[in-house]
Formats: sequence, structure tokens, C-alpha cells
Amino acid sequence: MSAHKLTELETAICIIIDVFDKHSRTDGNNMTLSKGEMKTLLEKELPWLLSRSKKKNASNKLMKDLDENGDNEVDFNEFVTLVAALTCLAHKRFEKVSSKL
Amino acid sequence: MSAHKLTELETAICIIIDVFDKHSRTDGNNMTLSKGEMKTLLEKELPWLLSRSKKKNASNKLMKDLDENGDNEVDFNEFVTLVAALTCLAHKRFEKVSSKL
Repeated sequence: MSAHKLTELETAICIIIDVFDKHSRTDGNNMTLSKGEMKTLLEKELPWLLSRSKKKNASNKLMKDLDENGDNEVDFNEFVTLVAALTCLAHKRFEKVSSKL
Repeated sequence: MSAHKLTELETAICIIIDVFDKHSRTDGNNMTLSKGEMKTLLEKELPWLLSRSKKKNASNKLMKDLDENGDNEVDFNEFVTLVAALTCLAHKRFEKVSSKL
């Protein structure tokens, strides 16, 4: 692929990959997020998600839901499932707000 | 939610929503992408995707695959499915490249 300025959507895709890679490389397996890495990622990138949850260990609970193959790690595809779900939720929320304007 | 500077991941989520909304509002139903809107979005945002396909009407073919409920329109959730799949593909590609370095 020849070098070109990234489009908006390409930029979004690169950001998602960068965020995952930055956090997955801090300990152990570089290809997955451990519990600790996942917690740090959520605290830094989606602080409202944990603060809205009244459950203790919200990060661990979310991780369990995401961890489809049950290996106690979140791989990239499992992480993208979370981002996709949050994007759909955010879009629904924006729709509601704009329909009230 | 109080106003705060968006994190990287929040920025990516907002970009995905903005791109969809900008294109879905150009004709007909504002909540979905028509065939024409989808083609324009792909040409502007993911030009390599269409140029790599040797099939004529690659955009229509892709749209058919995405259109889960068969209404000839791509809604936001269907669009996010495409973005998620492309993000996973891009990540796999980057992995291969970096493993060769």
C-alpha cells in the first residue's frame, strides 16, 4: 500500500490497534491483555465505564464476559467486540439526545 | 457525563459514529446507509478496500454481506460489524509485518 494520509476511519482503526498494543505489551503475553493490563486500559481509556458500575471488581467481571475462550486473557478480537458494543451503545445514546433537541 | 478531554479510545468511537452519521444523512433514511451512501463512504474512507477487489460492484457485494436484516440498507450496527472485522484484519496484518522485522 502506498503511503497516504490516513482517512478518518483508518485513523479510528489505527487508534484501536495502538491502544490495545500499548497495554498488551506491559507484561507477560504481548498478544493479549491480562487482568491487570485490562484494568489499566479501562481506567485510562474508558474511566466512566468503571465509575458507572456499582459492582466491585467491575473490570474482572467485564473481562470474564469478554474472555470467550476462557484463557483469562483478552485477545485482540475479544477487545474489538467490547469496542464495537460500546460504539453501538454510544450511537444509541447520541440518537436519543439528538431526538430531544 | 461531565465534559472532559476525550481519551484515545473515545476519540476512535466518536470518529466511527461521525463517519456513519455524515454519510447516512445525505439521502433518504438518516439512520441507515443506502447503496449510494455506502459506496461514497467506502470510496472516501476505505479506498483500498474497493481498489483491491477485482469484482465489479464490490461495494454492492459487500453491502449485501453486511445487510443482515435484508432491507437493502446498512444500519449502524451492521456498519460497526464491518469496522470491527477490518480492524481485526488490520491488526493481523500488522502482526505479520512486525514479526518479520
